[in-house]
Amino acid sequence: MITKYLALPGPTEVNPEIMLEISKPIFNHRNVIFKDLLERVTEKTQKLLNTKNEVYFLTASGTGAMECAIVNTLSKNDKILALINGSFGQRFADIAKQYGADVIEFHGEWGKGFELDKIKKIIDELGDNLKGITVVHCETSTGVLNDIEAISKLRCSDKTLLLVDGISSIGAVKVEVDKWNIDVILTGSQKVLALPPGLAIIAFSSKAIKAYEESDMPKYYWDIGKYRKFYIENRETPYTPAIPLFVGLLKQLEVLEEKGFDQEIKKHEKIANMVRYAIRAIGLELLNDDDIAANTVTPIKVPDGIDLKQLRKILLEKYSVDVAGGQGKLEGKIFRIGHLGNVEPLFIISILAALEMALKELGFEFEVGRGVKAAQEFWINNLK
Amino acid sequence: MITKYLALPGPTEVNPEIMLEISKPIFNHRNVIFKDLLERVTEKTQKLLNTKNEVYFLTASGTGAMECAIVNTLSKNDKILALINGSFGQRFADIAKQYGADVIEFHGEWGKGFELDKIKKIIDELGDNLKGITVVHCETSTGVLNDIEAISKLRCSDKTLLLVDGISSIGAVKVEVDKWNIDVILTGSQKVLALPPGLAIIAFSSKAIKAYEESDMPKYYWDIGKYRKFYIENRETPYTPAIPLFVGLLKQLEVLEEKGFDQEIKKHEKIANMVRYAIRAIGLELLNDDDIAANTVTPIKVPDGIDLKQLRKILLEKYSVDVAGGQGKLEGKIFRIGHLGNVEPLFIISILAALEMALKELGFEFEVGRGVKAAQEFWINNLK
Repeated sequence: MITKYLALPGPTEVNPEIMLEISKPIFNHRNVIFKDLLERVTEKTQKLLNTKNEVYFLTASGTGAMECAIVNTLSKNDKILALINGSFGQRFADIAKQYGADVIEFHGEWGKGFELDKIKKIIDELGDNLKGITVVHCETSTGVLNDIEAISKLRCSDKTLLLVDGISSIGAVKVEVDKWNIDVILTGSQKVLALPPGLAIIAFSSKAIKAYEESDMPKYYWDIGKYRKFYIENRETPYTPAIPLFVGLLKQLEVLEEKGFDQEIKKHEKIANMVRYAIRAIGLELLNDDDIAANTVTPIKVPDGIDLKQLRKILLEKYSVDVAGGQGKLEGKIFRIGHLGNVEPLFIISILAALEMALKELGFEFEVGRGVKAAQEFWINNLK
Repeated sequence: MITKYLALPGPTEVNPEIMLEISKPIFNHRNVIFKDLLERVTEKTQKLLNTKNEVYFLTASGTGAMECAIVNTLSKNDKILALINGSFGQRFADIAKQYGADVIEFHGEWGKGFELDKIKKIIDELGDNLKGITVVHCETSTGVLNDIEAISKLRCSDKTLLLVDGISSIGAVKVEVDKWNIDVILTGSQKVLALPPGLAIIAFSSKAIKAYEESDMPKYYWDIGKYRKFYIENRETPYTPAIPLFVGLLKQLEVLEEKGFDQEIKKHEKIANMVRYAIRAIGLELLNDDDIAANTVTPIKVPDGIDLKQLRKILLEKYSVDVAGGQGKLEGKIFRIGHLGNVEPLFIISILAALEMALKELGFEFEVGRGVKAAQEFWINNLK
């Protein structure tokens, strides 16, 4: 049984047109076809990220790219500030600690944006001693979109690097790598880019590359120096790349570019709003305020008297709809509807309709159809 | 342009039947479908490896799995013996050095098997102080199949771990993980298993798991403790896995098991012999003696007066045949025909025919057709 409706914050559905590309015969990653492909996906990814920074591709999940960001730019005992308001912010901190960085954890409330004035104070106190800041753009575990541009501006020293996990934001939300002075940013193939999982993307600023030269953390597979050398000299990757995902990525970037990268961001905005209006109309409570809510995933509080396991089971077994549960502190307290990548309004209508029916079955009191109607109305009013 | 004949030691051609499986819609890696899949690929991989050891899957290339082997079992300053007779043996040593192991490099001649008596002497001298031995089973860069069973027996201390790179051997050559007392062995999806690249497999003995508990090398993405915990508790992977490759792997393991894992080994033996007989009949020289030659890749010396770049260019552009060059010390001196995974006799005949025609075009003197004929004769005489 394959789930028909994948309403997760990743992995996301792959467009059949893209899957056809991915299914083409394997070829040699040391030959001219791949070199050309690698150069083209690099250029297009730079456009997507609004950057001239160097872009590299790893055969890995997003967590691998987080580790790659840490071990290439930091050294043991480097003081870094880890901004944490969810489980992925914590992950960034944990990786840095594992490699011996001196990590100052700043904990924000889960589901809320950061209090920037408090962060500013810490940064100012540390001054030149602060080597880096780690932060997650879209904190998938809580649905919060952190304000990277504002956080970037808090730095008071040229020495402080900004390392950003853009796994669930890139492509769905404006990301201005150069304008925002992001030193390292990374994402995975299975999120907004809507490819199968298995490929991670990471971009390094010239400041980050300089930090690499001084970094003493051990690394081999993640050693970006090898990726640079192989790319510059031969347009190759140092180790066997996930070839089919490169073919799919080029096609997907072409499709997105043709639609317009900004149009995709607007699409995600509209769809997120449809979901939020609908959830409120049903009478459920959102975890986030709208001003900090990400357009890629919507966390919803589990209402009193509803058994989340039952709800997810009915959704999956009766309607073939897979929504995500909560993570970490929020496990059992929220469920999350992912709406990123290839999602379209009618897909969302289907998810909402199934959610309403499952809630009804579990005895939640509301007027069936209200959520769907709210989504339709938002859509009608916002058709261009 | 896609190369039709991929005569490489990986990546290898993917069977269209398997590619169809891989192209199925993406599903949730935290749901029951994946849990069942993970359990089944684990059991079948154990059968393939002849082991009861714990098997884990990484979203990575084979090199990532080599790093995973090192950082999970060793500690800084641990004395290890790296057996090196090619570029992958060197890679294992380099990874261990990068993480601060005290690496004693034993260099064998490239293209030859190891002199076991010399190795035995070193091992005996080190005794209990020797924490581990790293060795590559099939040294892809030179075509040598190292004798893992014999090397395993050289250990004089229970404390010494045996870490084996089985990337280009597993599936094509007998690998008895339990009988040979291998502590860690690893492979990649794009070799004999004939899947697209992007998935690595690694198996740990109980002795290796015990070593993990004491290991102090930094790790996060490779931390096998997390893989163990997630597998034992939930039949999950800690980070998003390369879902389609798991679907393909299960199907491929089913196909191979039905044919018989031993039959596949015999097929690789026959095909390797066809290639060797043919190459000698053409009048070219093999790099390896037959008794140490791997059944997955055949390195051939570039004859005097032949420009290797020209040869590979003609093969690729005129015949759509992609053979590999040499690596490291052997770059420019050899070329390599890979014959692993889904290769069949008639595929080999095609490669040999193209090679003959390309050599003729470049002025190499021999009777066209002799190589193909030798391969056919070997095949006729060895049809069951």
